[in-house]
Amino acid sequence: MEKDSLKTHILKKKVVKIFKKFGLNNNHALISANALINAELVGAYGHGLSRLKMYCERISKKVINPKPKIKIKKISQSISLVDANNSIGFVAADVAIKKAIQNATKTGIGMVAVKNSGHYGLSGYYAEQAVKKNLITMIYTSAPPAVAPHGALKSLFGTNPICFGTPTGSKIPFILDTSISMINRGKIRVAARNNQKIPEGVALDKFGKPTTDAKKALKGVQLPIASFRGSGLAWMVDILSGVLTGGNHAGRVKDPFDDFSGPQNIGHLFITFKTNLFVKNYNNRIKNNIRTIKRLPKIKGVKNIMYPGENKFKRFKINSKKDIKISEMIKKDLKILKN
Amino acid sequence: MEKDSLKTHILKKKVVKIFKKFGLNNNHALISANALINAELVGAYGHGLSRLKMYCERISKKVINPKPKIKIKKISQSISLVDANNSIGFVAADVAIKKAIQNATKTGIGMVAVKNSGHYGLSGYYAEQAVKKNLITMIYTSAPPAVAPHGALKSLFGTNPICFGTPTGSKIPFILDTSISMINRGKIRVAARNNQKIPEGVALDKFGKPTTDAKKALKGVQLPIASFRGSGLAWMVDILSGVLTGGNHAGRVKDPFDDFSGPQNIGHLFITFKTNLFVKNYNNRIKNNIRTIKRLPKIKGVKNIMYPGENKFKRFKINSKKDIKISEMIKKDLKILKN
Repeated sequence: MEKDSLKTHILKKKVVKIFKKFGLNNNHALISANALINAELVGAYGHGLSRLKMYCERISKKVINPKPKIKIKKISQSISLVDANNSIGFVAADVAIKKAIQNATKTGIGMVAVKNSGHYGLSGYYAEQAVKKNLITMIYTSAPPAVAPHGALKSLFGTNPICFGTPTGSKIPFILDTSISMINRGKIRVAARNNQKIPEGVALDKFGKPTTDAKKALKGVQLPIASFRGSGLAWMVDILSGVLTGGNHAGRVKDPFDDFSGPQNIGHLFITFKTNLFVKNYNNRIKNNIRTIKRLPKIKGVKNIMYPGENKFKRFKINSKKDIKISEMIKKDLKILKN
Repeated sequence: MEKDSLKTHILKKKVVKIFKKFGLNNNHALISANALINAELVGAYGHGLSRLKMYCERISKKVINPKPKIKIKKISQSISLVDANNSIGFVAADVAIKKAIQNATKTGIGMVAVKNSGHYGLSGYYAEQAVKKNLITMIYTSAPPAVAPHGALKSLFGTNPICFGTPTGSKIPFILDTSISMINRGKIRVAARNNQKIPEGVALDKFGKPTTDAKKALKGVQLPIASFRGSGLAWMVDILSGVLTGGNHAGRVKDPFDDFSGPQNIGHLFITFKTNLFVKNYNNRIKNNIRTIKRLPKIKGVKNIMYPGENKFKRFKINSKKDIKISEMIKKDLKILKN
């Protein structure tokens, strides 16, 4: 009998054990478990344990390689290419952000492209690693078709997040991690599994009609933010993470939940650079920036102007002190996967 | 008596002459005139001749330096810092994009920050220069307060464009150049000067109420795209172009039309890199990408799915064959400025 909630370290052990059972080595299992549990702790449930079963299924069906030979090719002192050999996305991204950090530390700027990777969870999770090393970072990844290009009746772009992180001179990093769709696809997926509705104006069904039915939305089209502007940003991300890197692009990234006909071959792009390239007092400057903005007059009902990442950090702090709740669905998954 | 329309080369000569009269050297006058006329030709009138008088006034009032000593500091083979010495923005940006192109050509990636600059017109104009050299480019610049941070009742962020350009394997470059506000500030300014209305939902007046009155909108707040997401993107641009570079940030960039109390000290950031860093066949890949997207089923009434920059390129082609129309307002400006 599974419990309704578990201490973080106990849950982590369970997840590590499951990943190892499916063939990941201890290190890769730990990297993957950490990423999933971090998503739970920051409240990004669509990127958390709700995906564990999918990852294991993809390993079983040989579309994720549990024993990848990951190659890092040096393009220059600053630039590297990671061929992830269809590893689980978490491991590919972990290798890549560490290399990007190394390159930036050495030369001021690091740029690392990844190909033959898979879904890696939250970009912000990797951005945090760079920010902890006092670097600024920009991260792009593509994703399976979910958003229709402006003017098109069919999804092609992924939710294609744009991620930007910077040190703030305080312990709470500035991490913008925003998808280009009106709503996160993971959230629609969780809503569909839990038979919940989604907000109006974020998705169309497969006939092009507005819908609040999560299941219909998954078969239809998510709307981009800001019409042609959001469509353009999604296209930019498709180019940076797909066309440039050697990854799949133009709608060819397979849906990890529905399509087991082959690996995803997702591409990612990690750019990192030092904060003190052009100014000596970056930390003071950004502290001043944030302070100035926080002191602006606020609209009715707003107590604090928050910078991106602040809320997530607070949720992480609070949730880290508590047990992690295990939904009925996750309980079932854990039970199946461990046997 | 000024004419209602002028041939491009005749208009350019007039503008060059005016800039030289105000103290710019021939080269700087030509760079500036080219940028203004390009804006007219691509139909971005808010960045075109409607700004000429403002630039000249700023030179007269000594808040643009007509004889700048622009310094380029080498940070590394890839990275440079331009101190523009309060030059007109066009000249600063021209120096910077050329340096960024040089650095990328040498090392694969170029990053150039600019400080002590001013409004430089359209980011896309500089992106085109990099794309013509077969480079991908990302350009960020801040601007005077126009958009309220999410939760705030006061404008602080500029319209802070995000610009991305890439070669396409065809003669029409992919140039995304999108401001983070619902509407371009230049367009509101032109509407205000011509007593035209602006669309609903793009701006609030100074009391926080929705308005379609362009003059009231200029005194109020422009709304960011996509609520907190757009606010986060605007904040990112403020950090990249202001905090990082040594430029003004957090709402300290002066409005070039209204505030002559000192130079703007705008910062810009130019990132450029080679298309073939990670793949050998980039041009084929992006051609395939664009072709695939253009072939998607279209929504009713849409004939072509256009990529960012395509429309602008077509307008440029058409307008280049015609005389440039001179509005009554511009006529008046030209008459005053040449005497």
